[in-house]
Amino acid sequence: MSKKKGFHPDWRETAPESGTYRDVFKWGAPDQFKHPNSGFYALLKEELGLTDAHFQKKQSEGNETVRCDIPISLSEEQISALKELVGEDNIRNDDFSRVKYGSGKTMEEALKLRQGNVEQVADLVVHPRNVDDVRKIVGYSNEQKIPLYVVGGGSSVTMGFRCSQGGIALAMGKHMNKLLDFNETNQTATVQAGIMGPDYERILNNAPELLKAKRRYTCGHFPQSFEYSSVGGWIAALGAGQQSSYYGDMYDIVLSQEYVTPAGNLKTLDYPATATGPKINDIMKGSEGAFGVLVGATLKTFRYMPENRQKFGFIFPDWESAVDGAREICQGEFGLPSVLRISDAEETEIVMRLYGVSDTLIDRGMSLRGYEPGRRCLCIGMAEGEAGFTRNIKKNVKRICRKYGAMYISGMPLKNWEHGRYTDPYLREDLNDFGVIIDTLESSVTWDKLHDLWRGVRGHIKSRPNTVCMTHASHFYPQGTNLYFIFIAHMSDVGEYKQLQDGIIDAIQAHGGSLSHHHGVGKMIAPWMEEHLGKEQMDVLRALKKHFDPNNIMNPGGTLGLD
Amino acid sequence: MSKKKGFHPDWRETAPESGTYRDVFKWGAPDQFKHPNSGFYALLKEELGLTDAHFQKKQSEGNETVRCDIPISLSEEQISALKELVGEDNIRNDDFSRVKYGSGKTMEEALKLRQGNVEQVADLVVHPRNVDDVRKIVGYSNEQKIPLYVVGGGSSVTMGFRCSQGGIALAMGKHMNKLLDFNETNQTATVQAGIMGPDYERILNNAPELLKAKRRYTCGHFPQSFEYSSVGGWIAALGAGQQSSYYGDMYDIVLSQEYVTPAGNLKTLDYPATATGPKINDIMKGSEGAFGVLVGATLKTFRYMPENRQKFGFIFPDWESAVDGAREICQGEFGLPSVLRISDAEETEIVMRLYGVSDTLIDRGMSLRGYEPGRRCLCIGMAEGEAGFTRNIKKNVKRICRKYGAMYISGMPLKNWEHGRYTDPYLREDLNDFGVIIDTLESSVTWDKLHDLWRGVRGHIKSRPNTVCMTHASHFYPQGTNLYFIFIAHMSDVGEYKQLQDGIIDAIQAHGGSLSHHHGVGKMIAPWMEEHLGKEQMDVLRALKKHFDPNNIMNPGGTLGLD
Repeated sequence: MSKKKGFHPDWRETAPESGTYRDVFKWGAPDQFKHPNSGFYALLKEELGLTDAHFQKKQSEGNETVRCDIPISLSEEQISALKELVGEDNIRNDDFSRVKYGSGKTMEEALKLRQGNVEQVADLVVHPRNVDDVRKIVGYSNEQKIPLYVVGGGSSVTMGFRCSQGGIALAMGKHMNKLLDFNETNQTATVQAGIMGPDYERILNNAPELLKAKRRYTCGHFPQSFEYSSVGGWIAALGAGQQSSYYGDMYDIVLSQEYVTPAGNLKTLDYPATATGPKINDIMKGSEGAFGVLVGATLKTFRYMPENRQKFGFIFPDWESAVDGAREICQGEFGLPSVLRISDAEETEIVMRLYGVSDTLIDRGMSLRGYEPGRRCLCIGMAEGEAGFTRNIKKNVKRICRKYGAMYISGMPLKNWEHGRYTDPYLREDLNDFGVIIDTLESSVTWDKLHDLWRGVRGHIKSRPNTVCMTHASHFYPQGTNLYFIFIAHMSDVGEYKQLQDGIIDAIQAHGGSLSHHHGVGKMIAPWMEEHLGKEQMDVLRALKKHFDPNNIMNPGGTLGLD
Repeated sequence: MSKKKGFHPDWRETAPESGTYRDVFKWGAPDQFKHPNSGFYALLKEELGLTDAHFQKKQSEGNETVRCDIPISLSEEQISALKELVGEDNIRNDDFSRVKYGSGKTMEEALKLRQGNVEQVADLVVHPRNVDDVRKIVGYSNEQKIPLYVVGGGSSVTMGFRCSQGGIALAMGKHMNKLLDFNETNQTATVQAGIMGPDYERILNNAPELLKAKRRYTCGHFPQSFEYSSVGGWIAALGAGQQSSYYGDMYDIVLSQEYVTPAGNLKTLDYPATATGPKINDIMKGSEGAFGVLVGATLKTFRYMPENRQKFGFIFPDWESAVDGAREICQGEFGLPSVLRISDAEETEIVMRLYGVSDTLIDRGMSLRGYEPGRRCLCIGMAEGEAGFTRNIKKNVKRICRKYGAMYISGMPLKNWEHGRYTDPYLREDLNDFGVIIDTLESSVTWDKLHDLWRGVRGHIKSRPNTVCMTHASHFYPQGTNLYFIFIAHMSDVGEYKQLQDGIIDAIQAHGGSLSHHHGVGKMIAPWMEEHLGKEQMDVLRALKKHFDPNNIMNPGGTLGLD
């Protein structure tokens, strides 16, 4: 399809210069890249109505050194006092730090940073060394009414910790990043909130060597942001990992938590279950730094048994049969696969390119058997757990998929998905470099409203000419699933982008979807919350906010729709 | 062991006279009874230091007609206004109704009622017809500051709805007892809060005939009080059924709820999962009528497949190996059995009599193989779900139990347990008739603290001479379990009983157990809550209480430790 055969855009292969805007917004490791392969590139041009010519010249790459003219609103006296509390080494107020720790990973922020547009930043970045530091900072900030924003891995895609009123960015990852205790009897780990996903998982996987444990363990939580997200962030934003259908989401995994709040400090009890009234542990989850600072948590861990994994892939004749099959799998009472993903027809064609299925024997087999491009839908999955358990899941999954007309296509596509699962977001930089946005919004929904939500949101996105809309369901429950919408369009104007995004959230709201399944609310979704929950339920959140944080210093500026 | 061979106490076989105290406190169906069998009777005498002579004369049976001299504190005007709201037929203020709807099923209440001692009762019993009635009653009560106690099935063993400040007992079961909707696509049912367990389960089991469904379903929640408890009560008190290890406890089963509160009415959203901040649905669960009136809920339902059940029984050499085996089952990642019960040595000897295992071939086999009475521990269980899933569980359970030295003893004891599972509490009337108390307290605990809790509580109970203490674990999680303590002693004095009970709760607190695993808090456990949760966490509950119920009309008098 490409006019100039063999043309490949000059996808960038160099790390951002240190201290530049690109150094702030680039996803993941500075020196890692994932470029569109030729199949995906060809499809993109066709769908977006672009030619090779468009991909010959890069747009603003954000190569300039970060500058921040926003005045620091803290007084010299306040800064000195904070230095006194945590030590000079743990305070930063240079331009780069203020922007870096004040910025998440939304498309909107990336578009603005590419243009050197810095809007809302921290006045000061503070790296607490321990719980005692956090107590002092919260106490002082509360007394002085200084806004306090808690930053974990920094991968929020909802403006979760955006410092919309300046103040302090409390960066948990520099010091408070340790595993404190591993209890093999209970299969629990106690960590500081700032520990990063890969560090945590590495320790658990190597528990015999590092913790003198009898077995290897896994945390069970693998969001796409795994490599650049912290355990504290997972809990604060109610994340769900890509294996949540088996392991549960963070809400399920957290046994107890420790918080420092303006109203005092609390450590919830770690009973496996209890009937002692409304559960404080659950009231705190998902509070996104608006009630207090999450300093540590005790989490369930799971036996690490990769040798028992059973992988599978199917092609369904269409979206309806894929949904029906997935539903029957989830309601079949044989346990859930850890990974289950069904892609709609548009996504299927793209991921078959991305996962290397296109033009293989599998692809030809599908076509021969009448699975038509544009209708057929990919399903990939994996079961984890004890060996007999995973074999039984695969057996049942095969039975059900066949019942709904699907053809087995091996575990190969799953393996390819696994390989790229954390690096797919790296594609964003390449596309943005050429003025193409790619972003996602996600929702959860009961089975009975799934098709209406899918049609409503997809209809809205596709009403814009030359716009890609890929949809999959990837987190499953007996009562429903999530829908994850990925949209790609040629645009650089932030206003145009915001209009598209707002329209999608409106469509989710209008068609019975939850405003978020696993990204959280932040300040991005916040304006929809009052309508979503209704006044009476928002009043409950406001009452809790008022209790914990009467001076509104914790993540002020709209998080959760609170102010 | 019985001195007079063949003597059997004259266990009562007649229903209580209508309108008597016994009519209030008797457990379960008026004309159903379960008497101690001869083995259990012999053991009781031995353990309690009693003889047949003791069992020749009954103590106060509560045969007198209920009288209530407590003045009604509502004015004639208020009563008229309430009659206006719900109709005269739905208001009762006769002595029997006031005592009946003001009394739960605690041992303390039964002891007092046997002596005609009526302490705290409703002024008025009101039977709302619908949500609109509830709204009017809550509105009027809030305006007039009339205490409001919500009564479901009436089986609380924690003084959950005890009308400690008079006012209205709002009885949900007379009218608001319907299944409103069944959604087979989502596998959910929407019910009014007052629907009773057996009615609800019967509809789900007969879904093809009654609801035109494609399959049969089950509610999955079977507390021992199943026959005399309501769905609303299950949720309000955070119940866990005897099959909760597979189906989850009520906290897990409730998808959404509808409340009428002094601060407004709310219906939580029914997404299968969501990341939109702290979950209002979960904040309401376990609020025990202190925040508002639960009028309805949408619940997960499960496929009813009794044909796939796999039953099993084992005898372990001792308590330590039974606990270790159970822990490995729970952490094995092959799914959990729905029923799993391990009894300590003292309980094992008693339940072997109760379940008819004693003096059978199984019993002789155990002895021959060296499983010693006084050390050996019974384990019974059942797996539910898809056929391959349950077979795989049983296979793994057998493997693990053998590893810990257990001998397989068939599914027979489980079947006998199943047969008596709801009627065991009927034993209480027989024992009480002869001045013997039997009661239970339960706790949850992580695995690492289980033995300490078991020793601490058991030690306290056994420090009293001639006192039976049976203990089992019956609700399992990868991180821990519950301990359920049953104590039997010869005493009729309420003060002496209270002293024993308080000491047990103190011991649970002192040895790291939760104050309740599945009975709730009520006004009985309430005095321990502040120490249990700590001031900061109690402050959160108090803030919620103040928000929902600023005039403290909802279940006032100490529920949850709130006032």
